[in-house]
Order: sequence, then C-alpha cells, then structure tokens
Amino acid sequence: MRSLHFTAETSSNGVLERDFTMGEIPGVLWSPVSGSDHAPLVLMGHGGGLHKKTPGLMARAHELVITRGFTVVAIDAPGHGDRPRAAEDEQARADLREAMVAGDTERVASVSVRYGASLAERAVPEWQATLDALQQLPEIGAEAPIGYGGGITLGTAIGIPLTAIEPRITAAIFGGGFVVHEALIEAARRITVPVQFLLPWDDEHVDRQSALALFDAFASKEKTLHANPGDHRTIRWFGIDDEFLVRHLGRVATSPA
Amino acid sequence: MRSLHFTAETSSNGVLERDFTMGEIPGVLWSPVSGSDHAPLVLMGHGGGLHKKTPGLMARAHELVITRGFTVVAIDAPGHGDRPRAAEDEQARADLREAMVAGDTERVASVSVRYGASLAERAVPEWQATLDALQQLPEIGAEAPIGYGGGITLGTAIGIPLTAIEPRITAAIFGGGFVVHEALIEAARRITVPVQFLLPWDDEHVDRQSALALFDAFASKEKTLHANPGDHRTIRWFGIDDEFLVRHLGRVATSPA
Repeated sequence: MRSLHFTAETSSNGVLERDFTMGEIPGVLWSPVSGSDHAPLVLMGHGGGLHKKTPGLMARAHELVITRGFTVVAIDAPGHGDRPRAAEDEQARADLREAMVAGDTERVASVSVRYGASLAERAVPEWQATLDALQQLPEIGAEAPIGYGGGITLGTAIGIPLTAIEPRITAAIFGGGFVVHEALIEAARRITVPVQFLLPWDDEHVDRQSALALFDAFASKEKTLHANPGDHRTIRWFGIDDEFLVRHLGRVATSPA
Repeated sequence: MRSLHFTAETSSNGVLERDFTMGEIPGVLWSPVSGSDHAPLVLMGHGGGLHKKTPGLMARAHELVITRGFTVVAIDAPGHGDRPRAAEDEQARADLREAMVAGDTERVASVSVRYGASLAERAVPEWQATLDALQQLPEIGAEAPIGYGGGITLGTAIGIPLTAIEPRITAAIFGGGFVVHEALIEAARRITVPVQFLLPWDDEHVDRQSALALFDAFASKEKTLHANPGDHRTIRWFGIDDEFLVRHLGRVATSPA
C-alpha cells in the first residue's frame, strides 16, 4: 500500500491545511487546528478543468472544518491541477475548445461524456488508494465515518461510480449541471446510501430531464432533490439542508481550541 | 366587511386554539397562549376531502406556534369539513368515487381538475375575506407579515391562484401530488414571491412532469424544489428547509410564557 507524504502545512482561522502526495497524486487535507480525533472525513471533487483548491471548494471545506469539526480531503483529478496532462487529456481539451468555439453543443456533449467517463475510470481507484492511505493516519483510522461531499460536474461524474463501488462511503452529495450518460445511470442504480442531489434548474447546455433521470435512478431509500433557479456557474443555493452530512456522518464533540 | 366571531376556545401545550366563523365559513386560529403581537400569520390549506383540523395540518400549525411564535389560520374549503355540501359537491364526490371504483384514472383526473378549479374559484375570495377580518384583530392588524403555509393537493390548488392575486402574501409553500391543469400553470406564472415547492417523487396517479412544469412556471426569483421518495400519502419529508417561512416572514422576539 502506498502511503501519504505531507509536503506543506499552513493554518488560518483555525483550519490546518496540509498538502500531500500519494504516489503521483497531489492532494490536500483540511482539519481543525485543535485536532480531529476520528472526525467524519468528507471527500470533495472539483469541477471539470478545475483543481483541488478552487475557491468554491475551499470555502465549503473551510466551513465543514470550522462549523462541524470535520476533516476534508481533495485530490487533483487526472490531467487536472498540478498533474501532468497525458496525450488523451490534451486531445480532449483541444476537442472541447474547438467544439465550443464552433458552437457545436452536440460535439461538446459527446466529448464531455467520453472524457468524463475516462477520467472517472482513472480517478475512482485513485480515490480508493487515497482512502486507504488516509486511514493509516492515526487521527482518521478506520473509525472516521466517510462521506462524499459533492462537487459539480466532474466531481459528480467521478463521485457516483466511486460511491457505487466503495462501501466506506456512507452518505453522498451529488449535483447536476453536466451531461448524464447511461453508465452513470447504471452506477446510480447501485447506490443505496443517503443521497442529497443539487440541481441547477436552468442549465442552458444540459438536458434537465437527464438530470432528473439520474436522481430517479439512485436506489437510496433516503434521497432528496433540491433545485434552485440558475445554471451551474451562476447558481446561488438557498434552502439546502445543511445538516445532511452531520445527520449521516455524525456530530463531532466540540473541544476547546 | 364581515367580521370574525370566535365560537370556542381551548389551549394545550402553550397553544391557544380559537374556532371562529366568518359569515358562513368555519375556521380556526392557533396562536401562542403568551400572546402574538403582530406575529407572522400563516394560512394553511387542507387536502381534498379533508378539513381544517386534520392531524397533519394541526401538527404543522402547533409546531409553527410553539417553535416560531407564529399565528396560524385554517378554514374549511367549500363543501368540506363543517360546511354543507352543495349539489355540485355531492355530484363531484359521487363521480370521483365511481371513477375510482372503476379504476378509470383518466376520469378521476378530469373530475379532480374540474372540481378543484371550481373549489378554488369559490375559496379564493373566501380566503381574502377571512384575511380582511383577521386584520381587524388587534394582535394581527395590517402589520403581521402573511405567508401561505402549504397543504397538499387541494391546499395547493387553492393556494396558487390565491397567492397569484393576493399581494398580502409574501412567501408561499406549495406541494405536488395532484393533477396540474393549465389554469394553475397560468396562475403560477403570475407568482413572484419566494416559493418552496415540495414534490413527492413517486405519486402513482400523478404525472411527475406536470408537477415539474408547475415548479418551472413560478416567476419567483427565489424558488426551491424539494423532492423526496414516496407518494403524497406515504411521503416522509426530510432535509426540507425549515427556515423558509422564518427567513421570509421574520422572526418573533421570544417572550416568557
């Protein structure tokens, strides 16, 4: 089993941020400066073309650490962030750019689906190896409850197949805003843990019905769809159940900092 | 203007329950025993075939009074509860029963739509007259913010046209679980106040797409759809934004009982 090497450490506002590498995968772990003994661990995915420290992702991670005492981890997806791009990554990005410039939405969709599926295939075992390594850390161990904390577009395209085969994940937040393909629906059918599904109601380039079909596919007895107006870039979320992860992963006893 | 006559008064668990009549309309007002000076007023609708004191409605009313300090009002819809049934009401009920026994879901739908629209046409001015009378009460007055607090099926079929034409209502909770007709979609297009929409995801006798079209129709900048598995009778709601009414109608300063 590969282990995790911490490469940098900073802290601000009570949040300890530790960069790490796990083999060739760069990641970051956020936890309370005051310690986090077997606190729930939340896995965060980033969007397509983005990386593990995008502002939105960091803001949600900080909030989970500060207000809940949780530990949060993010890794760069293959070909994203600090990772080298393989020929396939370069080709897919070039194809996407070309299709977007040409306004060829059908081609954008088909490239996105193909590339997203390929990324997920590579990313799922990477997340599993990262989990193995994180569970070697004494403050996490095998005891920390684990949830998938969401992430739009690519974060969900990777999170769904991961949650479908990874029994350590006991609750998951997913989101719409991307092109749903049949393999994703198939994976959703194998998910039985509680799911929160966030749907931007007005995504110009995405078929709303396919996102609804994805929500429909989860086998989970407890699943909630929250839809708000806006597309996945402009959406302002309100009225979302902030207690979802706490309800399923548990509360951390607050200790003095 | 007709005024409101209180006919009975009881209290339990800090909730004062006052039955009233307003002309021929029987109603009930729930408020904190400790008083409710211009506290937000929430209008509750009951489901088709039910009445103003059904257990689910009363439970939600009590919760709003006890935990929020709100005032809650419910009235019997025409032909429902303590009200006499006109020939039209008897006929519609007989038609519905017959269609249900015959398993003729198309006829159930068409009778429901026609009867629901007729009930709404009669109920909307009744709600408005009740509001006029309630605002004569010193503890409510013109100052109390007013919200529509929901109610499944008939409660929403009446609440939508009411909210569309009643500027005193500044936030509304509606729900799916019934047959949506075009006039309701038209009314929804005229609603601009914040809306919370609760959708039972698996309603056997109701077309899910028409409920989604109804949510889509609200012109409100702030609207949230919450969907949970189950039909409108069996659904167990979780992860719903309990702060919706408080956020839009305001908080009551808690005073010692």
